[in-house]
Amino acid sequence: MENLPHPDTIIDALSIDCVIFGFKDGRLDILLVKHGEGISAGKWALPGGWITYGESVDDAAKRLLNSLTGIRDIYLEQLKAFGDPNRYPSRRVVTVAYYALVNEENYALIPGFTASDAQWFSIHDLPPLIYDHDQILDYGYRQLKHKVRHEPIGFNLLPAKFTLLQLQELYEAILETKLDKSNFRRKLAKMKLLIDCKEKQKDVSHRAAELYKFDKRVYVTLRKNGMVFGL
Amino acid sequence: MENLPHPDTIIDALSIDCVIFGFKDGRLDILLVKHGEGISAGKWALPGGWITYGESVDDAAKRLLNSLTGIRDIYLEQLKAFGDPNRYPSRRVVTVAYYALVNEENYALIPGFTASDAQWFSIHDLPPLIYDHDQILDYGYRQLKHKVRHEPIGFNLLPAKFTLLQLQELYEAILETKLDKSNFRRKLAKMKLLIDCKEKQKDVSHRAAELYKFDKRVYVTLRKNGMVFGL
Repeated sequence: MENLPHPDTIIDALSIDCVIFGFKDGRLDILLVKHGEGISAGKWALPGGWITYGESVDDAAKRLLNSLTGIRDIYLEQLKAFGDPNRYPSRRVVTVAYYALVNEENYALIPGFTASDAQWFSIHDLPPLIYDHDQILDYGYRQLKHKVRHEPIGFNLLPAKFTLLQLQELYEAILETKLDKSNFRRKLAKMKLLIDCKEKQKDVSHRAAELYKFDKRVYVTLRKNGMVFGL
Repeated sequence: MENLPHPDTIIDALSIDCVIFGFKDGRLDILLVKHGEGISAGKWALPGGWITYGESVDDAAKRLLNSLTGIRDIYLEQLKAFGDPNRYPSRRVVTVAYYALVNEENYALIPGFTASDAQWFSIHDLPPLIYDHDQILDYGYRQLKHKVRHEPIGFNLLPAKFTLLQLQELYEAILETKLDKSNFRRKLAKMKLLIDCKEKQKDVSHRAAELYKFDKRVYVTLRKNGMVFGL
């Protein structure tokens, strides 16, 4: 394995786990890696691993995600430290979890380091996960649902110009619920977050819909001050 | 020292720190302990210490706060893990920080365990703190300010019946700013969070003001769904 840190260089009581949500074709996915070695070889897990003595915990999260899956340059937000005394099988390990929501199409998956595979899985069709990774994933998912109700959703999840239906499908995938179209549009209009591009979709087989884009000024303000999107 | 865990029973790369804000007489304070032993003896610090192998990280936070300061039965929320490689002087230690906001009058401070003293300090007049505790405190303070703009403020910080001026002073102490009285009252009224008790203050030297209490139903809903108090 490439770049495997020497055991003496890692903090043995502390690990990283990354809960990376991906959006593609109206579906919410989660990024998993297959362990290629060690006590859980062949099993699926959240991307994660050990922190070396010389790097910050934040830097370890970025390094591990990149070396295991090829994903780099995303904003990883710290989720929570999970510290149940029995969460790891062979010794005491506390894990610091991070999370992010990305547009899958912007990243190519390249398994590496201790991972023999890296894949997106539908959030509704997951393989069994090691340790307490299902609990970490559940917590991250609840946090994501909370976040999209209180901050404008990531800019980069949709094309620069998008339809209201595309935006609604993004919220529906994350919130796991069908939303009422007119109710959704009324609440959205109140936020004044969208600009009407005054143009329609092209090359679609159905009736072409109006295109919209985010008003960056409003976007930044809502991000800073928070909001309540009562979906 | 009472109940000092044996060095073999603690995780040496991981610690706890608690950022406990206190409110009293219109002033926001922070709880500090004086280290009674070790490399930082005689210095002031956030209450914290080591996690034993048998307890969860959450339980360690409760135990340490209680044994160092006497405070028990408060809801400690996890703030963030601080993981800079150079934050601790003699070896690599990542700390998991917790925070809370309490009414000082509900707690008696009883220094114990490794603390020779425990005191409330005005947030505007702090002694020098050890390690990166000023950064942890700053982060916790920013988080607290964010929280009071997006959730109803703690029930237990004011008397059961309070005046609008008392409530305004609580927000002013936390947000470190003078608020416009009529603007504050207008925004507050919109939330429909308060019930007019239809009675006035008694035994006050100034003109008696109207008393209010929280509407528990609205309180719970706002807590759950979030809100934006645009102060």
